[in-house]
Amino acid sequence: MRAAFHEQLDEISDLLAEMAIAAGAAMNQATQALLNADLAAAEAVISGDDHLDELTSEVERRCYDTAALQQPVATDLRIVIGSLRISSSLERMGDLAVHVAKQARLRYPNSSIPNELRATFARMGALADAITAKTATVITTKDVSLGPDIERYDAEMDHLHRELFTVVLSPSWAHGVESAIDATLLSRYYERYADHAVSIARRVMHVVTGEPYADTQLLIEGGSTVQGS
Amino acid sequence: MRAAFHEQLDEISDLLAEMAIAAGAAMNQATQALLNADLAAAEAVISGDDHLDELTSEVERRCYDTAALQQPVATDLRIVIGSLRISSSLERMGDLAVHVAKQARLRYPNSSIPNELRATFARMGALADAITAKTATVITTKDVSLGPDIERYDAEMDHLHRELFTVVLSPSWAHGVESAIDATLLSRYYERYADHAVSIARRVMHVVTGEPYADTQLLIEGGSTVQGS
Repeated sequence: MRAAFHEQLDEISDLLAEMAIAAGAAMNQATQALLNADLAAAEAVISGDDHLDELTSEVERRCYDTAALQQPVATDLRIVIGSLRISSSLERMGDLAVHVAKQARLRYPNSSIPNELRATFARMGALADAITAKTATVITTKDVSLGPDIERYDAEMDHLHRELFTVVLSPSWAHGVESAIDATLLSRYYERYADHAVSIARRVMHVVTGEPYADTQLLIEGGSTVQGS
Repeated sequence: MRAAFHEQLDEISDLLAEMAIAAGAAMNQATQALLNADLAAAEAVISGDDHLDELTSEVERRCYDTAALQQPVATDLRIVIGSLRISSSLERMGDLAVHVAKQARLRYPNSSIPNELRATFARMGALADAITAKTATVITTKDVSLGPDIERYDAEMDHLHRELFTVVLSPSWAHGVESAIDATLLSRYYERYADHAVSIARRVMHVVTGEPYADTQLLIEGGSTVQGS
């Protein structure tokens, strides 16, 4: 009974890792759609989101079944409930990739972003890749020592998001209001994407340590801590 | 034992209703801060968010305890897990009120919004009030017949959000890029706030009906249905 139970939890964990990889692939492809005004890539992200929604439902169904049949307590209960929360965050990360793709599609065949912001969004895309890869690893290995890496990626994403405001509000911005709004919303989608990755890492840490989630912090190297968002 | 259990579930439901009322009060005060450039109101929303975060932790603690000690199945299990999800949405609604208040504070003593958008944001604030009141009632009464009202408020919020783009992108927009970005982000906060209310109503319906959450729809009067976002 216990062996079967832990097998079920492992399967749920595998599904969550699969979701993280799917969300990461979607955001990667959305970034390509954005940077290259690639309509086919945008459409692929938009139509591919159903798969992530199905995985969310599958995780939810398995968590309910496991909770009802196995009556977990303590750490096992935290794993089941934590998995539901993590699947919600991953589903939302997929939605944010769709938002990016829809923005690329909206302006096609033009680009949604002017040349001077290409490097910013390329870096945001790379950070989304990196934070997703770490998140998938945290889900699979429960290695919470990766928390500081995830925090660092998130901090850089926040920094790029704040910098972007400076660019679109500078007197030299020559692309008008629409382009400034496009860039701001896109930047916010990447920033929220990284927030969800932080939230997942905190959730895994909560499962592992048993600390209340609200108090769970991802340690930054050097001893200081920052509160995840 | 069962009586004590149902008392615990009722207490959790009361806490969720209290959270909904707190989130609604926060968004109402944030709207006042925004419309009247009222710094004290903005500060009150920002500092008051701790209370909502504490309530979230309290709901989480009680749901864990109830799940561990009472080992619920079927509808009771859905109530416990649904309550956790609902508390996450309510906490996020409070965060969105804080975003609105911070925007009002950022531009103080100026207004964040030009006169021609006052009516739009006043209406968005009124819709946020209305959707929160219905959501609190759905949480307390489990009366899912209120779903269509919530959908209708959300549809009007989406409509205002789309209309706002037309205003800030029109050739007659005389307030520059910064003001257009402020208005767009603010409008998105209200729109996401309403999305969370829809998500809560769908969650309650899922608890009541037992349908998979992904397939749960809030019926629109006249027989057609729309998928909640």
